[in-house]
Amino acid sequence: MNTNFMKLRDIMRTQNVTYYLVPSEDPHQSEYVDDHFKCRQYISGFTGSAGTFLAGSNEGWLWTDGRYFTQAEQQISSDITLMKQGVYGVPTTLQFLEQNLHPNDVLGTSGLMISASYGKKIAKLSKKCGFDFRFDLHFVEHLWAEDNRPAMTKTVVYRHDIKYSGEHTDSKLERVRKKISAAGADAFFLSSLPDIAWLFNLRGDDIACTPLFYSYAWITMDKCFLFLRKDCISAAAFNRFKEHGILVRDYSEIDSFLKDQHTNVLLDPDLTNYFHYNLLFKCKIIEDKNPTELMKAVKNETQMEHLKECHINDGVAMTKFMYWLKKNVGKIPMTERSISDHLEAERKKQPDYVGLSFETICAYKDHAAMMHYQSTEESDIAVTAEGMLLIDSGGQYYGGTTDVTRTFILGPISDEERKYFTLVLKSMLTLADAKFLSGCRGSNLDILAREPLWKEGVDYRCGTGHGVGYFLGVHEGPNAFRWRSNPENLDAVLQPGMVITDEPGVYVPGKYGIRTENMLLCRKWQQNEYGAFLHFEPLTLVPIDLDGVDLSLFNDKENQLLRDYQQLVYDNLAPHLEEDEVSWLKTLLL
Amino acid sequence: MNTNFMKLRDIMRTQNVTYYLVPSEDPHQSEYVDDHFKCRQYISGFTGSAGTFLAGSNEGWLWTDGRYFTQAEQQISSDITLMKQGVYGVPTTLQFLEQNLHPNDVLGTSGLMISASYGKKIAKLSKKCGFDFRFDLHFVEHLWAEDNRPAMTKTVVYRHDIKYSGEHTDSKLERVRKKISAAGADAFFLSSLPDIAWLFNLRGDDIACTPLFYSYAWITMDKCFLFLRKDCISAAAFNRFKEHGILVRDYSEIDSFLKDQHTNVLLDPDLTNYFHYNLLFKCKIIEDKNPTELMKAVKNETQMEHLKECHINDGVAMTKFMYWLKKNVGKIPMTERSISDHLEAERKKQPDYVGLSFETICAYKDHAAMMHYQSTEESDIAVTAEGMLLIDSGGQYYGGTTDVTRTFILGPISDEERKYFTLVLKSMLTLADAKFLSGCRGSNLDILAREPLWKEGVDYRCGTGHGVGYFLGVHEGPNAFRWRSNPENLDAVLQPGMVITDEPGVYVPGKYGIRTENMLLCRKWQQNEYGAFLHFEPLTLVPIDLDGVDLSLFNDKENQLLRDYQQLVYDNLAPHLEEDEVSWLKTLLL
Repeated sequence: MNTNFMKLRDIMRTQNVTYYLVPSEDPHQSEYVDDHFKCRQYISGFTGSAGTFLAGSNEGWLWTDGRYFTQAEQQISSDITLMKQGVYGVPTTLQFLEQNLHPNDVLGTSGLMISASYGKKIAKLSKKCGFDFRFDLHFVEHLWAEDNRPAMTKTVVYRHDIKYSGEHTDSKLERVRKKISAAGADAFFLSSLPDIAWLFNLRGDDIACTPLFYSYAWITMDKCFLFLRKDCISAAAFNRFKEHGILVRDYSEIDSFLKDQHTNVLLDPDLTNYFHYNLLFKCKIIEDKNPTELMKAVKNETQMEHLKECHINDGVAMTKFMYWLKKNVGKIPMTERSISDHLEAERKKQPDYVGLSFETICAYKDHAAMMHYQSTEESDIAVTAEGMLLIDSGGQYYGGTTDVTRTFILGPISDEERKYFTLVLKSMLTLADAKFLSGCRGSNLDILAREPLWKEGVDYRCGTGHGVGYFLGVHEGPNAFRWRSNPENLDAVLQPGMVITDEPGVYVPGKYGIRTENMLLCRKWQQNEYGAFLHFEPLTLVPIDLDGVDLSLFNDKENQLLRDYQQLVYDNLAPHLEEDEVSWLKTLLL
Repeated sequence: MNTNFMKLRDIMRTQNVTYYLVPSEDPHQSEYVDDHFKCRQYISGFTGSAGTFLAGSNEGWLWTDGRYFTQAEQQISSDITLMKQGVYGVPTTLQFLEQNLHPNDVLGTSGLMISASYGKKIAKLSKKCGFDFRFDLHFVEHLWAEDNRPAMTKTVVYRHDIKYSGEHTDSKLERVRKKISAAGADAFFLSSLPDIAWLFNLRGDDIACTPLFYSYAWITMDKCFLFLRKDCISAAAFNRFKEHGILVRDYSEIDSFLKDQHTNVLLDPDLTNYFHYNLLFKCKIIEDKNPTELMKAVKNETQMEHLKECHINDGVAMTKFMYWLKKNVGKIPMTERSISDHLEAERKKQPDYVGLSFETICAYKDHAAMMHYQSTEESDIAVTAEGMLLIDSGGQYYGGTTDVTRTFILGPISDEERKYFTLVLKSMLTLADAKFLSGCRGSNLDILAREPLWKEGVDYRCGTGHGVGYFLGVHEGPNAFRWRSNPENLDAVLQPGMVITDEPGVYVPGKYGIRTENMLLCRKWQQNEYGAFLHFEPLTLVPIDLDGVDLSLFNDKENQLLRDYQQLVYDNLAPHLEEDEVSWLKTLLL
């Protein structure tokens, strides 16, 4: 039994609340959150990054996606039912509420932790089904306050130098104001932390693996307010802001500020919390995507230059690590966790390195069947000279964020494993080689990666890739590679300067997991009478472990793609490696 | 100078109308219309099937899509500007109205000929820009009435036998009523002619090449009104309708009927005209797709059986024709038009044949660069033993509608022509071979056909394919293969039983045009732990002209696909062909 969940039910009983919703988000709808905000984890015991928990009077329900099914099943207690998102017949949280809540029910939640879009949907349901919806109930926060809840992390906010960002805040603000105006608004309320960091060329360290700082921004045509913990910035920074017309307010002042506003305000209802949305009751709210999202996703020339450099450095670390791994496995003791540490140590030696961009996934044999496996003290196992090891890792550098997966062959593998290792590689290379007309979305291209596996009746239950931030979040919209689309969630049109991962895989529970991931940069290819054609340049420079490849499954074209990629890696990395590493890398050329 | 357009401007002047809009549609928003409704053609001179004409006081503008640019340029007078839809920088009609119309302007049109969606958009613009919008002005109709306007075609409405349709009207009505109810409506207003024909298992011949009859339907939970020209049905049919609770009203009574309605009515604003939409002012209108659209697109088992048979018959006609063409070209005189006639004669010999499903496109050499070329007495040319001949044609059969394109090699062709003939074939075969998870849309799959050409920096400026009706329209929604998508126009999720064309091409103005088109039937492939996989079965059975193929451009897989297809054609058609035809067909096996 889960005692925290039991205590929550006690509070619910005394307060006459029959259902209580605990989402994963913070007040900024961040994907990864500071430990202070991990309410869903505190109550449900499930540690994955995505999920929604619903408490009932006697039982609970946890929704999470395909990456986390295995992990969640292991972590939740028996009074909690796992609701597998995306599986046929499993209702969404909203469908579940509609089916189960009745006029006598009271659904509680903390409106700070759900988006305005989601809150509005629940409010609509509450009208339809007749249940009461209260979004001012902070049960988990109260409970946790008496149980060593960690304080909000507070770190120094620092400048991201123009030599890395390539565009001054004044110029970004000018672009944003054009969008405010075009939307028919007079102000823009921004809650999204990566967008604020991008807009003001600032970084912090409030959230693990992501250089963000807790803040809000309110931008009008002639003013700009930045809400942050004031003691997080230096007096010099404070004065610099003032010179640029940026008015700094304390993070805690946002509620009273919002309540006083009376204007036409643009905001993104998916990235503004429901509590704040309701505070703006005097405003006319214009709902749209944050204009900063697309601006941030399209990297400028300066950023693209740094990205290349940063991927050479990251590639050097990964390749040195790979050489060490392949040479020493079976000879010296190693475990999933010691291997992760070794890799992190290699990254730390690289220039401009700041830290990991996410907790390293180092998954041996059947552990790799869990897409987002995290090796813990309990699950850690010895890695020996057999089977496959999947490592998905990345670094934060001042000049970019990296995300790369390689599956390494440590010894004998089965024919089935070799076949799927090869098909996954084929998928990755085929998508990376796409040429496409400007106007295409990732959803148009996704099948290029999926078809080699679909032809075998096999699928990976996740997107093929996601956008990546620039010294920001490792997952970033609005571009993505995924095929499921409906009018509400179409992925963005691909544009030159966008960065995206290409990471097909095969996951067989209890047996093995394979993923090969490169980051790609979208560029112009050619312009002719048919329009503007785009293509991708590989950013990631880490060799493919040829020990897993069955070249007889490749046609000439695919063979050439692999040959070209290995050569590209060699040409870029060799100058930065030791002699023995270079000799070994040469053996990976085709 | 175009005298009809001049006369229109005279009327506009006397009525103080500064702009007048003439769309291509009829009151049912049909794609192909009876000659009686070809107002846009009458005024502008442009004979293509799609286009919008806007008359100004001194000049006019004609919008049409990429299929018709060349044709339209040749047909319109110098006082009309061609507005190339989809070309960068060319405003849409609505954008043009927004940019050019001012508070003193009056925009007129006939509200019967525009959709409710479009009418509402113009009404919104008129508010925004301040111009006056009048949709009760039938200028072209008045003008044409004095100039031998053809009367509305009136043909006999007949039953489409249950042995072909596979489902009784009672059953279809029951399914429709469930959808009415699910939409929260009490009635459903249906203007779309193919949907009415499908729902009532009736056919007519009011529109060339499409077995439709002018009609409306109004369906409530316990009543069903069918509006048609009463003298088009027999007394027996009338009585049969009565037995099934179908109340027949005259086509001319629809306006007064609609005005009297006072209920919650479901209708498709894209397929209901703006005039009728406004007559329903006492109703609460629930706007959605016609539920019949998706039902009609998913063919039942009976239909699928007939489709196979019908494609064997159509394939026999096409293959006999191909044998004749390849044997005789250069030896006996032939022209584009005489060749079309010969092909039509072959189809006429087939069982269950009713007529052409569209006017045959028979385009020699550079004529084929116009996607929808129609050979006229003036443009007709002699076809000799050189270059390529593109023939896109199809038939209406009681058991299905066919649409097939083959490009025939009549003599020497250039290396460039051979290369693109081969790549177009590769595109067609690759898409037809797709395996995909249930949930995919055509927009997910389209790139499989396009990528072999995009890799060469070449594109065809149209969709890759469209749905096809069953003894109905040759173009049918809601499924399609096209890549451009936005939230407003997402193509439907593909389902087993849907029929779709696969027709990539290469078009080089002034030189040549290549298109290879097969019809595909979506079927279940396999169900496993990853979900339900679908695939396509080829319906079209017409050999590929191997004289155009450069097999060195194919990999082993593509080679196999071509080999399998030719064998499939041979196996299905050989039993129905003469001895010399079979011997020749055998030479097309690989």
